[in-house]
Amino acid sequence: MTVNEERLARLEERVRRVEDELAITRLVASYGPLVDAGEAEAVAGLWAQDGQYDVEGWQMTSREDIRAMVESDGHQGLIGGGCSHFLGPAHVHVRGDEAVAVCESILIRHREGGYSVRRAGANHFHLHRERDGWRIKHRTTRALDGSAEARELLRKGALGGTL
Amino acid sequence: MTVNEERLARLEERVRRVEDELAITRLVASYGPLVDAGEAEAVAGLWAQDGQYDVEGWQMTSREDIRAMVESDGHQGLIGGGCSHFLGPAHVHVRGDEAVAVCESILIRHREGGYSVRRAGANHFHLHRERDGWRIKHRTTRALDGSAEARELLRKGALGGTL
Amino acid sequence: MTVNEERLARLEERVRRVEDELAITRLVASYGPLVDAGEAEAVAGLWAQDGQYDVEGWQMTSREDIRAMVESDGHQGLIGGGCSHFLGPAHVHVRGDEAVAVCESILIRHREGGYSVRRAGANHFHLHRERDGWRIKHRTTRALDGSAEARELLRKGALGGTL
Repeated sequence: MTVNEERLARLEERVRRVEDELAITRLVASYGPLVDAGEAEAVAGLWAQDGQYDVEGWQMTSREDIRAMVESDGHQGLIGGGCSHFLGPAHVHVRGDEAVAVCESILIRHREGGYSVRRAGANHFHLHRERDGWRIKHRTTRALDGSAEARELLRKGALGGTL
Repeated sequence: MTVNEERLARLEERVRRVEDELAITRLVASYGPLVDAGEAEAVAGLWAQDGQYDVEGWQMTSREDIRAMVESDGHQGLIGGGCSHFLGPAHVHVRGDEAVAVCESILIRHREGGYSVRRAGANHFHLHRERDGWRIKHRTTRALDGSAEARELLRKGALGGTL
Repeated sequence: MTVNEERLARLEERVRRVEDELAITRLVASYGPLVDAGEAEAVAGLWAQDGQYDVEGWQMTSREDIRAMVESDGHQGLIGGGCSHFLGPAHVHVRGDEAVAVCESILIRHREGGYSVRRAGANHFHLHRERDGWRIKHRTTRALDGSAEARELLRKGALGGTL
């Protein structure tokens, strides 16, 4: 290999790392807009076929489960009244074809002309690279209500660890 | 063209795509700090010369209109009392010299020693590449109060469509 | 130098600029999760050895001071009850080995089953590239309560200026 070829290969690797990080921050940034729009199919498509979403005791274990959550009376009531699943910027660790992302989130709800914060949460994402892009294997969300579990999600996520 | 030249050209294209996405997320991330600082000129400069900002019935159709909004008694009263136009991370689609970005936002207001959420909004941006960088052609903002229109902004934005 | 070598060198520079911007947005995005997890050591490690954090009259001037803040009764009370130091997406200017970043933040607190916004803040970061990555030299935070000082932080930060 010539010197230029080696430099080119190294640079290709760096660009791939950057693209991976951006792809995952984009994926996380799309969750709020999609779920607040009620786009059940697109939300489900952020997860792997057998992806899991564990949110305070509600355990979803497939795209079908996630689609059903978006279409549920509970979620439709939320978006019908007005709400924002507001996720902060994701902090991402990529290791080959696996990645971990963490962010905090707040749920804002509209009611009777006003808005209020209904929840603050810790979100840990374990992602996997599939042939056509990154997908969520496992998302775990816990309320930031002082529980040790929520703080552990933040800690592991910020340090790039899986649960 | 040699093999290396082709690889280099492909990589240049990938880096340009990354730079475009970052430039647009930066532009959106600068709106809150600039508008809450009252920097009318800099806020107006985020838009194209004939850029539009349509926010719940208030239709601005030029940089001059946007500058006037920042300098208005309404906006000056907000920032004089204390507020945060808090925008979430933008989700961006780039297609050549056009781009679409979407994010949710909340307006926090300070009053009598406390803070409260005064609004949650859906934001759709249609941007265009000018000679010296990206500018907003059309930003549309609607309150997340349960209206179908706000949800449609989120849906179109997250899927990369214009309005 | 051949034409390809020049193109390669230019591209390496562009990728480095992108990596710098991402590294700084990542650093800022890690603050909330780490501080809400109570990870004193990791929070302190975001700052340079002699880094400063000036938050509304509380002046920390070393990693030791920052570690002590995270371990203080005040902070432990906050995270023990449940809170989110929710920082928005950072807007970054890089100039060689120095950088400036700005973002807004809100503090959400959990109490008696509900959540409320306790503060909105303006955050200005001055960062420096060290051998193993970027570190905060000086972070300044002021409440967005209408003070001219908070607005000046936003203005300087968004335009890339130091304080």
